[in-house]
Amino acid sequence: MSKFAPLNALETQALRLSLGLSQAQIAALTKHSEADVVAWEEGTQALPQQAEKLLLELDDVIEMQVLNTCDGIEALFKKEPKRRLAFVVYPSQALYQQYNPEFLSSQPLTELYTTAAWRIKKECKLVLEVDVSLVALDAESYKAYRADNGLSESRESRAKWAADQLK
Amino acid sequence: MSKFAPLNALETQALRLSLGLSQAQIAALTKHSEADVVAWEEGTQALPQQAEKLLLELDDVIEMQVLNTCDGIEALFKKEPKRRLAFVVYPSQALYQQYNPEFLSSQPLTELYTTAAWRIKKECKLVLEVDVSLVALDAESYKAYRADNGLSESRESRAKWAADQLK
Repeated sequence: MSKFAPLNALETQALRLSLGLSQAQIAALTKHSEADVVAWEEGTQALPQQAEKLLLELDDVIEMQVLNTCDGIEALFKKEPKRRLAFVVYPSQALYQQYNPEFLSSQPLTELYTTAAWRIKKECKLVLEVDVSLVALDAESYKAYRADNGLSESRESRAKWAADQLK
Repeated sequence: MSKFAPLNALETQALRLSLGLSQAQIAALTKHSEADVVAWEEGTQALPQQAEKLLLELDDVIEMQVLNTCDGIEALFKKEPKRRLAFVVYPSQALYQQYNPEFLSSQPLTELYTTAAWRIKKECKLVLEVDVSLVALDAESYKAYRADNGLSESRESRAKWAADQLK
């Protein structure tokens, strides 16, 4: 049991908004109805402990990704002092699932990944003075870029494509 | 001019969500139409520089409030090592305006104040291991509490009332 108090209605809503999710998405993730989610946020029903745990864990996963990515970026800039970076995000759930199957268990929705990317952008600007742009993957443009440059599909190729979009 | 790139469509939406605001609220704040806000987030219209500046400033104001409040809480806990705190938030714009007229220019909407409170809660949990609960002001209950305890209206009285709600 956490030594912290359970989330109240207001906090439940603030958590959802900070994750960048809709009530429908919270319902799907927690396997409850949308009416339940509305009731949690209106305070007419308590947020079940299991649902609270899941939602707080999603936020923790994001914070961990922010921390790790910003550490990586900081290390990168010791060697390579350009101050502009592209970070690939996924404009649909289908693209997100296709390219990030390994993230689906801990970070199931593309919106969560985009929320993490936004927090990374903010943190990098504030702490490292690095300008991170979120670039939505365009599958057609990415395929053409790979063909033109003889690259196979990889996270690194995606990063190269994204950097190319900033030119 | 900022040396950072202008916000793209995706980033504009991520910023709005991180502030906890609707498209209608962004429209009202920036004095544009809701259709404009939709167009900014769909990338069919560029986010005007003035609107970008305003929205980034709102986020900065929140970050500053988080920093200052957490510093204050840290100092408080050097003297008074209880690990639970109540933070008053305002469930309607009318109550927010009534009790926080001095905040209206820099933080015009109660939702922004609640977003700041949520970030304070998160930061205090993570960094200070202090459990902050967001307590929505109940004007009737607060008035009765003041009468019972002979208190005049002040930020401090509100904090006392809120702490009493956690009992």
